[in-house]
Amino acid sequence: MDRETALEIVRKQLTKRRYEHTVRVTDTALALAIKYGADRNKTELAAALHDYAKFRPEEEMKHIIEEDDGIGDDLLSYNLELWHAPVGAHLVEEEVGISDPDILRAIRYHTTGRADMTLLEKVIFLADYIEPGRDFPGVEEVRREDNLNTAIVQALGNTVIFLIDKKQKVHPDTIAAYNSLV
Amino acid sequence: MDRETALEIVRKQLTKRRYEHTVRVTDTALALAIKYGADRNKTELAAALHDYAKFRPEEEMKHIIEEDDGIGDDLLSYNLELWHAPVGAHLVEEEVGISDPDILRAIRYHTTGRADMTLLEKVIFLADYIEPGRDFPGVEEVRREDNLNTAIVQALGNTVIFLIDKKQKVHPDTIAAYNSLV
Repeated sequence: MDRETALEIVRKQLTKRRYEHTVRVTDTALALAIKYGADRNKTELAAALHDYAKFRPEEEMKHIIEEDDGIGDDLLSYNLELWHAPVGAHLVEEEVGISDPDILRAIRYHTTGRADMTLLEKVIFLADYIEPGRDFPGVEEVRREDNLNTAIVQALGNTVIFLIDKKQKVHPDTIAAYNSLV
Repeated sequence: MDRETALEIVRKQLTKRRYEHTVRVTDTALALAIKYGADRNKTELAAALHDYAKFRPEEEMKHIIEEDDGIGDDLLSYNLELWHAPVGAHLVEEEVGISDPDILRAIRYHTTGRADMTLLEKVIFLADYIEPGRDFPGVEEVRREDNLNTAIVQALGNTVIFLIDKKQKVHPDTIAAYNSLV
């Protein structure tokens, strides 16, 4: 599958605003793939499809999380914002027919991260964080950072501090990602 | 065992400065025990003995962590600061002869916290954080907080943010403690 086919598939799943975010993530991810040596086609497909499940109803996501043995049910006790990533990997395999485990993992962990992320996972995670439409506190420092792992440590650190300031739960995979890179 | 016996035992294990911290933790913990309804004698013993292993040589702590099946070896990949708590629980049982699992758990988790802490664990954790000699950023807000769980969430949050600012690893039990109370 090529980039344009993947974008056309995902466009029907998203709002216009989210689709535009997706195109920016895909462009940003490709630039990172070239810089850090990740597979370009896999990067474009994973980036194009990373938010595939973003607008699925909560009930459908809950059902998939409960039925898919690869997704722990404890995810249901974390913020709804985190659900679409593993559910997206599930649906991209089932509905889009992507079976490449590298691509599916990059979609699955694009929000939380995890310990020992692959290069492709790192590229998708970082592209989603720094795409030009993002305006998180500290995002400029992450954009300027020239080392992939250091950039991800900063992004994860910013995310954890943001969640603690809001008194929200922090997913253990996010701390595991941070701990494995720091 | 009474408070004075426990303090006399631990005094020989500590520097003067650390012993004085221990006495302040014991006084603070007793006040918290009275306020929140924890067992007074257990609180005084756990508080008096919480830093029992603080000055054991790194090699001895490492050996105990490797040999005690109740302490995961992955602790060795975290900051040395965290080792003395589970090692302390081990040595307080072995050398002091305390077998009460409540007291041993409170010593074991006094630095990291853990998910679903008992009342005694919370009292010791918080007393160690707020005793009058402490001067962490944010400690005054924690001292003023009138709800035990909220105070611990604040203390844990401050600790995680401090570690992230220093680019240090965060123990998963600390995040689990935070997540279980937030």
